[in-house]
Amino acid sequence: MWRGVPLCDVLKRCGIYSKKHGALNVCFEGAEHLPGGGGCKYGTSIKKEIAMDPSRDIILAYMQNGELLTPDHGFPVRIIIPGFNGGRMVKWLKRIIVTTKESDSFYYYRDNKVFPSHVNLQLANAEGWWYNPECAIDELNINSVITRPCHKEILPINSWTTRRPYTLRGYAYSGGGKKVKRVEVTMDGGETWQVCTVDHAEKPNKYGKFWCWCFWSLDVEVLDLLGAKEIAVRAWDETFNTQPEKLIWNLLLMGSITCNRE
Amino acid sequence: MWRGVPLCDVLKRCGIYSKKHGALNVCFEGAEHLPGGGGCKYGTSIKKEIAMDPSRDIILAYMQNGELLTPDHGFPVRIIIPGFNGGRMVKWLKRIIVTTKESDSFYYYRDNKVFPSHVNLQLANAEGWWYNPECAIDELNINSVITRPCHKEILPINSWTTRRPYTLRGYAYSGGGKKVKRVEVTMDGGETWQVCTVDHAEKPNKYGKFWCWCFWSLDVEVLDLLGAKEIAVRAWDETFNTQPEKLIWNLLLMGSITCNRE
Repeated sequence: MWRGVPLCDVLKRCGIYSKKHGALNVCFEGAEHLPGGGGCKYGTSIKKEIAMDPSRDIILAYMQNGELLTPDHGFPVRIIIPGFNGGRMVKWLKRIIVTTKESDSFYYYRDNKVFPSHVNLQLANAEGWWYNPECAIDELNINSVITRPCHKEILPINSWTTRRPYTLRGYAYSGGGKKVKRVEVTMDGGETWQVCTVDHAEKPNKYGKFWCWCFWSLDVEVLDLLGAKEIAVRAWDETFNTQPEKLIWNLLLMGSITCNRE
Repeated sequence: MWRGVPLCDVLKRCGIYSKKHGALNVCFEGAEHLPGGGGCKYGTSIKKEIAMDPSRDIILAYMQNGELLTPDHGFPVRIIIPGFNGGRMVKWLKRIIVTTKESDSFYYYRDNKVFPSHVNLQLANAEGWWYNPECAIDELNINSVITRPCHKEILPINSWTTRRPYTLRGYAYSGGGKKVKRVEVTMDGGETWQVCTVDHAEKPNKYGKFWCWCFWSLDVEVLDLLGAKEIAVRAWDETFNTQPEKLIWNLLLMGSITCNRE
């Protein structure tokens, strides 16, 4: 649970210009010098219309779970942008700059991108893919994870365990406040999919947006588990986008949210 | 190009209640009696927070392309909800009703749903899937279409045509105002994907949303076309959701937006 000040209120209070007068991007700059960063500080930016959208609940956070931020989480203040890629949520925030251009930080250009799958490192450098705004990840896509069974979990097969169902568990998440509407599990390589129970621990905000992941579970017969070579999960969000069956490779391996397999 | 009155302004002017006082859904009722509709008129509903969101540009439309609506398009007035499933955009609008419950129209329950793929007609009836709000389609998912080559198109192979590139064309669309960021074509069954040129004919609205489809094109060598068994296109929207390679069956065949193949 984060606590902070709405970014849009702070920007309004500071008298942010209109788009017409050049306020197109809101850049955030942290205090950190990172290795290999070309000498610049960690920084990134978001579009003005995103920054000023009250439905997005973007805050300058100074507390987490009722206590001041710890140093690891960005003390004294960091940005929280619900439903966005974590790379935009700058820690140890020092400056907010409103500009016509996007952030010029090395990290903004060199990270948090999804390139087409033919783009390798040489091509990304040669053809300037790093500077293509269409490749930046802002709102996250739909994804889901299996947490039970967990790695190296052992289920003894005996008369006690086989008389009870085994409960598969995990979580699912979509960006932009989109509700996860459905989670399905397959134990036969995608031939059939079983519908899981989905538990939303939060209420939506007053604009109908969901910011937290939700939890899914599915009771299966232990004897069915024995026959399964693989368990895979996929989620669907309220726009009925779902996860591809096969991994779609891209240079930074970001956003490649395939079905999660165990 | 539609012209109309913002729905949220009309609802405000009428003094719409708060959610706390029961204004949870905005129902639309048309004039039509349709065959097989259990005697009720066409009707549907959207959530109040959607209806009142100014960034969504929902209008009560009375003009199209500078002229009054034609009867076929809903004269005298219809709803336009950009980025939403067309089934919500009620024609020949007669009544708007604000209620705690969703629309009780036969068409609202019996249409515009995406069920899990194990649900057939018998199961949908027996288990009440029609009434499950998690299955309703509101915002549309990402999709794309090939328009050139068109059906039955013949390209003579001669020294003139093989010296020129052939231009594949089509359009792509995502719901909820999400920009289509990338369109890719494969001519080798998904082994490699070529990045198309994408042309957005519109500017985004002041909240950064794109309501119109965009056009894509790709120049290919005619000799490469000759070797292709199939051409397939997939699009990606700004949240990096893309289209599944294989069709995901569902009872009404809605929202099953696989790669478009020619």
